[in-house]
Amino acid sequence: MRLFTLNTARIYMLAVTILGNNSALPAFDRHPTSQVITLDDQLFLVDCGEGTQMQMAKYRIRRSRIHHIFISHLHGDHYFGLIGLITSMGLLGREQPLHLYAPAPLEALIKMQLEVADTTLAFPLHFHALEEGILVEQEKFRVRAFAVSHRIPCWGFRFEQVKPPRRVLAAEAAAQGVPSYFFDRLKWGEDYHNARGVLVKNDTVTIAAPAPLSYAYSADTKYDERVIEHVRDVQLLYHETTYLKDLADRALKRYHCTTEQAATIAAKAGAGRLLIGHFSSKYEVLKEFEAEAREVFPNTDLALEGVTYRVVST
Amino acid sequence: MRLFTLNTARIYMLAVTILGNNSALPAFDRHPTSQVITLDDQLFLVDCGEGTQMQMAKYRIRRSRIHHIFISHLHGDHYFGLIGLITSMGLLGREQPLHLYAPAPLEALIKMQLEVADTTLAFPLHFHALEEGILVEQEKFRVRAFAVSHRIPCWGFRFEQVKPPRRVLAAEAAAQGVPSYFFDRLKWGEDYHNARGVLVKNDTVTIAAPAPLSYAYSADTKYDERVIEHVRDVQLLYHETTYLKDLADRALKRYHCTTEQAATIAAKAGAGRLLIGHFSSKYEVLKEFEAEAREVFPNTDLALEGVTYRVVST
Repeated sequence: MRLFTLNTARIYMLAVTILGNNSALPAFDRHPTSQVITLDDQLFLVDCGEGTQMQMAKYRIRRSRIHHIFISHLHGDHYFGLIGLITSMGLLGREQPLHLYAPAPLEALIKMQLEVADTTLAFPLHFHALEEGILVEQEKFRVRAFAVSHRIPCWGFRFEQVKPPRRVLAAEAAAQGVPSYFFDRLKWGEDYHNARGVLVKNDTVTIAAPAPLSYAYSADTKYDERVIEHVRDVQLLYHETTYLKDLADRALKRYHCTTEQAATIAAKAGAGRLLIGHFSSKYEVLKEFEAEAREVFPNTDLALEGVTYRVVST
Repeated sequence: MRLFTLNTARIYMLAVTILGNNSALPAFDRHPTSQVITLDDQLFLVDCGEGTQMQMAKYRIRRSRIHHIFISHLHGDHYFGLIGLITSMGLLGREQPLHLYAPAPLEALIKMQLEVADTTLAFPLHFHALEEGILVEQEKFRVRAFAVSHRIPCWGFRFEQVKPPRRVLAAEAAAQGVPSYFFDRLKWGEDYHNARGVLVKNDTVTIAAPAPLSYAYSADTKYDERVIEHVRDVQLLYHETTYLKDLADRALKRYHCTTEQAATIAAKAGAGRLLIGHFSSKYEVLKEFEAEAREVFPNTDLALEGVTYRVVST
């Protein structure tokens, strides 16, 4: 497993924006799966169903800010929009490298699609075949992949803060002569020597960091308690709920979950909040999904397209 | 070249509905190329850029009525939506065969995409590698492919009525004792024996057929007068105009056309009407395309998404 270090200095914010929340067939103006994870000033794209680049335009997500794309599995509703996005990046003159983390067979498929179009990308596309473990690691954040139980090989992803920033007591810091430009460094634990040469100890002008921010995307999966260890104590969990609870048999047969099953995983994992999505095209109205999941796990919300869900420290 | 005979009995109507009119990059809510050709009760799909299945839903085009798809070339903006459409047809339980006419390498690509998803289509997908000549032939209509000049192999398609129906003089036919259920057969030249056993000669109750209906789609091409012979005297010609006339150099370099060039082809070919599309993403407003093309060929219209252009007999 290759590691890749990002050069982002400071990260305070973790959020997920939903670009598509429907299962395989697009319906009722709902789109196939895609999400944008915001880590401060960087965007990570998770899955890329058909039309994702149009959804990005609609919700003003800038392609140029995406440097890492994660594809959970090779069912079309999770990746058919990828080749269009990649070639658009090329047409727009992108030069920055793009890192793609996806099931191994996708590499040959992309290569073939570029070849038949006689297209050479102007930017480096680094392909990383998915396996369990850490995919991206940087000073403050890491992204980890874990296997889930689907009809074909499929992975979930966990984004988590490694070391959250301390909270600065601004008035106290100013009173001790720490200039405001240094506050950012205080957040990461540094001491300061003030103008009179006196040491200002970090813990006298800051308070301990809150719990690390974390988000897990468990992709397409049947009900499988082995997922729990990978998403344990996550602050925000996205779990698929293709069907309502009366269709548990169908869910099992198709390697998907019901509302009740998704909510049970969230409860057993001690998640802070649950987002549910990947709704079957048989449902036009989604209200029942929310109601059923909340019976088991009250802090549940529907993953709605265009909405950004911020991860809040618990 | 394989021939395929359709079993449609009667065709009176030819029309084209635009699903996408933009060039490579989706922009300004314009979509990549796709068109639906209506031949009476059948639909033929021409090109299938990303998002075509969503555009079909938006404009109420029924997937189940499509039995033939034509892909002009393997630049993504003309086919990236195809695999999504095909797999959706499968998920919807389609059983009817689908005929796909496309550049040869697409067959392996589709096969690979189905394999990595562990998907078997429930309906027969018949792949026909494109070459010049007749692709589909039936009693009343035929579809023919012709090569155009693009950066990679690319084909245009001509849809034309072989034998248009005669016009029935309803009052005269009724007066001679022809029942109305037989009018449809009168249109195709049959005589009738009335209730008294008397022969009613077809030409006494009908008038000659109008000129055959025809539509040509010339795909992506640089200015090339060799196209003219293939689209000669067509009643409706679609020709790409990626750029306005001041960018003729860029158009040539990228194997595309300007307004002036498209209109010149229409004029030299004796087309009845010209539709222009495949607009570059650099243009937000399209009015100038219309104005420039009309300077050379007055009967020109912009190919606008969601609009159906009916071919009228001349």
